[in-house]
Amino acid sequence: MASSTTPTETKCDVLIVGAGPAGLMLATWMAHCGINARIVDKRSTKIFSGQADGLQMRSLEILDSFGIADRAMKEANHMMEMCMWNPGEDGKIRRSDRVPDMPVGISRFLQIVLHQGRIERFFLDNIKKYSKDTLHVERAVLPESLDIAEDLCEDHSADTYPLTVKLRYLTEEEATPAQSNGSTVQDGLFRSNMAEDDTDDLIRKSREKQGTTEIVKAKYMVGCDGAHSWTRRQLGFQLEGEPTDYIWGVLDIVPITDFPDIRMRCAVHSASSGSMMVIPRENKLVRLYIQLTEIKPDASGRADRSKITPSTIISAAQKIISPYNLTYEYCDWFTAYQIGQRVGTNFDYKNRVFLAGDAVHTHSPKAGQGMNVSMQDAYNLGWKLGLVVKGIAQPSILQTYQTERRKIAQDLIDFDHRFSRLFSGRPAKDVLDESGVSMKEFKEAFLKGNLFASGLSVDYGASQLVAKPTDNITNGNTDTEQVTTKEDLSTIKLGMRFPSHQVLNQSSALPVPFQSRLKSDGRFRIIVFAGNVVSSPQSAVLRSFTDKLAASSFLKKYLYSAIDILTCHSAPRRDVELLRDFPDVLHPFDPKLGWDYEGVYVDDESYHEGYGDAYKKYNVNREKGCVVVTRPDQYVGFVGPLDGNEAWDKVETYFKGILVGE
Amino acid sequence: MASSTTPTETKCDVLIVGAGPAGLMLATWMAHCGINARIVDKRSTKIFSGQADGLQMRSLEILDSFGIADRAMKEANHMMEMCMWNPGEDGKIRRSDRVPDMPVGISRFLQIVLHQGRIERFFLDNIKKYSKDTLHVERAVLPESLDIAEDLCEDHSADTYPLTVKLRYLTEEEATPAQSNGSTVQDGLFRSNMAEDDTDDLIRKSREKQGTTEIVKAKYMVGCDGAHSWTRRQLGFQLEGEPTDYIWGVLDIVPITDFPDIRMRCAVHSASSGSMMVIPRENKLVRLYIQLTEIKPDASGRADRSKITPSTIISAAQKIISPYNLTYEYCDWFTAYQIGQRVGTNFDYKNRVFLAGDAVHTHSPKAGQGMNVSMQDAYNLGWKLGLVVKGIAQPSILQTYQTERRKIAQDLIDFDHRFSRLFSGRPAKDVLDESGVSMKEFKEAFLKGNLFASGLSVDYGASQLVAKPTDNITNGNTDTEQVTTKEDLSTIKLGMRFPSHQVLNQSSALPVPFQSRLKSDGRFRIIVFAGNVVSSPQSAVLRSFTDKLAASSFLKKYLYSAIDILTCHSAPRRDVELLRDFPDVLHPFDPKLGWDYEGVYVDDESYHEGYGDAYKKYNVNREKGCVVVTRPDQYVGFVGPLDGNEAWDKVETYFKGILVGE
Repeated sequence: MASSTTPTETKCDVLIVGAGPAGLMLATWMAHCGINARIVDKRSTKIFSGQADGLQMRSLEILDSFGIADRAMKEANHMMEMCMWNPGEDGKIRRSDRVPDMPVGISRFLQIVLHQGRIERFFLDNIKKYSKDTLHVERAVLPESLDIAEDLCEDHSADTYPLTVKLRYLTEEEATPAQSNGSTVQDGLFRSNMAEDDTDDLIRKSREKQGTTEIVKAKYMVGCDGAHSWTRRQLGFQLEGEPTDYIWGVLDIVPITDFPDIRMRCAVHSASSGSMMVIPRENKLVRLYIQLTEIKPDASGRADRSKITPSTIISAAQKIISPYNLTYEYCDWFTAYQIGQRVGTNFDYKNRVFLAGDAVHTHSPKAGQGMNVSMQDAYNLGWKLGLVVKGIAQPSILQTYQTERRKIAQDLIDFDHRFSRLFSGRPAKDVLDESGVSMKEFKEAFLKGNLFASGLSVDYGASQLVAKPTDNITNGNTDTEQVTTKEDLSTIKLGMRFPSHQVLNQSSALPVPFQSRLKSDGRFRIIVFAGNVVSSPQSAVLRSFTDKLAASSFLKKYLYSAIDILTCHSAPRRDVELLRDFPDVLHPFDPKLGWDYEGVYVDDESYHEGYGDAYKKYNVNREKGCVVVTRPDQYVGFVGPLDGNEAWDKVETYFKGILVGE
Repeated sequence: MASSTTPTETKCDVLIVGAGPAGLMLATWMAHCGINARIVDKRSTKIFSGQADGLQMRSLEILDSFGIADRAMKEANHMMEMCMWNPGEDGKIRRSDRVPDMPVGISRFLQIVLHQGRIERFFLDNIKKYSKDTLHVERAVLPESLDIAEDLCEDHSADTYPLTVKLRYLTEEEATPAQSNGSTVQDGLFRSNMAEDDTDDLIRKSREKQGTTEIVKAKYMVGCDGAHSWTRRQLGFQLEGEPTDYIWGVLDIVPITDFPDIRMRCAVHSASSGSMMVIPRENKLVRLYIQLTEIKPDASGRADRSKITPSTIISAAQKIISPYNLTYEYCDWFTAYQIGQRVGTNFDYKNRVFLAGDAVHTHSPKAGQGMNVSMQDAYNLGWKLGLVVKGIAQPSILQTYQTERRKIAQDLIDFDHRFSRLFSGRPAKDVLDESGVSMKEFKEAFLKGNLFASGLSVDYGASQLVAKPTDNITNGNTDTEQVTTKEDLSTIKLGMRFPSHQVLNQSSALPVPFQSRLKSDGRFRIIVFAGNVVSSPQSAVLRSFTDKLAASSFLKKYLYSAIDILTCHSAPRRDVELLRDFPDVLHPFDPKLGWDYEGVYVDDESYHEGYGDAYKKYNVNREKGCVVVTRPDQYVGFVGPLDGNEAWDKVETYFKGILVGE
């Protein structure tokens, strides 16, 4: 920190603005890749309650790859069933359906609920551990100017810093948001989309007091600074879309009620008092999303925030849930929002400044997507930045951030639009009631939407990172194939995340979910499905492939450091010996640590956990196997045969398109 | 801490001597029960490597009841398979058998391996959390005198402190054990049974320097101070048994080897170079137990410690494992021990001073039993002390510590004797080789011994705590029934631990292992297997029972505080509503927190985890159910019918025999 008159000048490779879920996910990648990064946030405190609360299956897979899913799983509430409540013929609500909260068998994780503050804590602990305490969130710090040296943007060499950012240090008082009312209940209105942004105000006040500043020269910058993104405004980019008239309140309470399904996720449509979503949480808490039909936006399209209090929200809930009783003694948090679906026009500026999370997409929180998609934006971007900064990957891979993620944001907005309309609308009285929402249609939309909401159906288009042969390389948006079935999520598909099925470690017989071996450590992985290695011809095929792999001069400098190798064979475990049947490159020898025992797996029966049947579920030929390459984010970049003269060449070609050569 | 001339006098309810696994388990109970306890240890540092490393299934169930099994599971190595290597006809070793490391399906946990230092760390963290930082290990402190006011021992009222203990505070230097050689490898010889005890020496030296002392008046004291127990010597009690001639070395190394099963548990019998046990561990470590056939005890029965170094031990291992190669660059720890099986004559003195762990039983470490049985001694004793100190339970329950645990110690010694002889002996060349050990016999003994080694087959005899109707009440040793089958471990049996099968929470449909609801919080549990509650007659049976339960004046002051209630019914989950179908006493109402949703469970199919089939596996009648009472340590104390006029009376009678009345 420098004096106000002569700001010091410092350098960093990646500057992250905003320490919400997207910013923290990015910082986690930086820690795991060993990048010289900084992360600043204008608020002086982290979140202790409320905010987003749902973690998708895919988000848990990602958290697990960094080593923090277990903490989330332990503390969270695990949701099992979704109950739908609708008006009967007498106009009173009754349970019309029970369905599983998430489809069965598509991930080794389930959807869970835990407040954002805890998830941020897990990130902070993980960043501290992996950065060896060198990277931590600098709070009460915000950027006040951004200068881009346009002529340097194309030059990604190690000494070039095209970005100049002036950071301003706030006092504790300046950085603490004022609560909107005098209650002792924590209030999220200041972060709600119904509140005005205070960034410019904070900068102006601090300037008047001649606060401290610092000049940072950065190679890359990522704006994870929310719906009002200061970074986005500097770039002149817009969010496109419109707000709607639907206003919703959110309450986190310990409910006192005779409503029977209060510990289930529920969608409650009342006949004429609006709708409510029930989300049971940890520590006896329940989150209620409640439609506030009596609060309307004014002519400017904005509603009066002062009318929204816990007591107005619970009153609305009581009308919806009648004839059941609902009250509370303890309220943990509340907020309100006005539904609006908007997507950013641009996700990056010249591959130097990137936007992630709410800075490029906003929508309603009910579907539990916001935090998840934001984290996944950053999960997509982080390793790319890491590998480019380290000089391992070609800078052109940075282009894939926008092509891959903007499509997802658009899909999300479409999903949210459909779902919000069905959820906010009045239930139809009968099939002739055309202005009402059919409850049959709602149920079908919910079940179909669940695959999307799992986060697992993401399917990145062709690019240098995804070797889809027939796609248009420059645009991720041209896939014709739609991912809509459970089977799609359990087989290996180009552009989709590598699914998880149980395999056994060849050396210890330990059953593991295969995906758990794909740690987020910045490495690509060559996954050799070696097939039936006790057959001599197949053994020869394997040796031919691995001989070429071991002899590749292009790969030599990346093997094990930037490219890991995993093997899974299909022969009976007991008929196979690691040292006898597998070439050394698949289980390398270290003079101090001996042979590696963590690289070779088998699709065979376990003693205590049944049979994973991985080859069948992955849809890989049991005899002949195949070769898969996963990107550092677990997405499948390449699939090819193990056999044939060109088998290895194709793998090498894939990597030559991505990694920096001699 | 007081000056050396006038020691201060303090009071505590329970004084624990020794902070190994037994002492820490006891302190954990004290923290969870909220008891005014202290724990002292003569060593100035905790253990960082080596020592005992196996955690049985039952130990993990216990750790889970305190909330720390997940940490152990995450860090530990999970063993899957046991491989047996024996000489072939050519005299060279070859793999003769592979069997599961533990029988399938007898616990929700598996046997794992993790070094004692980490397990002690989990205990320390847990004690800190639950005692709210009031209870911590006082290191470099040891008792130097114990006076017992004999006439006060019978009086267990709150103001009576029959024990006077003088504690001596050592300097850091005095309390740090000298390593026996100059190597940088951590060396466990100072704690091995081949080392002399240094307690008297420590006291003498400190006295000469006029170190600091303190007088503690205590109600109860527990000596968890190891095989040389100072506490045991004060009481004049003995360990009975003899050392043998077998001497074993122990090495924790990262092995460099072409032995194919180095990541499996292995029993290796060489033709004439002795035997070795291989135990794969966490972080690439492997523990080797190696018979040192070339080191013999002298005339006094003791072997020369100075001859035992990592290099003598690895040399012995190399001969056993030949023709495979075995070496290492990194050795984490080593020790040696002389097998000797001994049991204490007495486990307590007048229910005031108790002995636990190595203070009352010693044996070979190879079977991985020592730490486990020691912890389980303390697990048996802790809640009894807690409830007596709090005035909840009658002091007579303290007698059951000796009757219950001395039998286990004897069983352990018998097991170890059989197993050690088979393991240390030379393998028989053929069926006519009578002085050799038959490898067929070894395998059978191993498989049979596995049920015992799981720790699950413990079966406490009849007492006021275990309502076995036909046993001799005063002696736990009279059971005629032997527990030897897997089925015995999954059904509900008096005197045995309550097994775990999956049930669903009625209100959230969350699948849980039922045993996980039996937390170690010092409470008994009435487990109401409510049967088919949608049948009207059974519903009436349930109401009749619970009406009496709710009206019991004896139980009133203990309900929920000292006695928890759990319910599991067998009707379809979707046909049942918590508030409509279950009496309030099974899901009590709290004016601030609403209804309780954590008490009622159902034996029904889950969405993602299959069907637990709990009634069948527990062997409970699906229509009529039954009533089970578990002790605070999860052992079954009472089983009776739910139906009939006397159903409730029998439960009340059980509690009247244990708890303090008006």
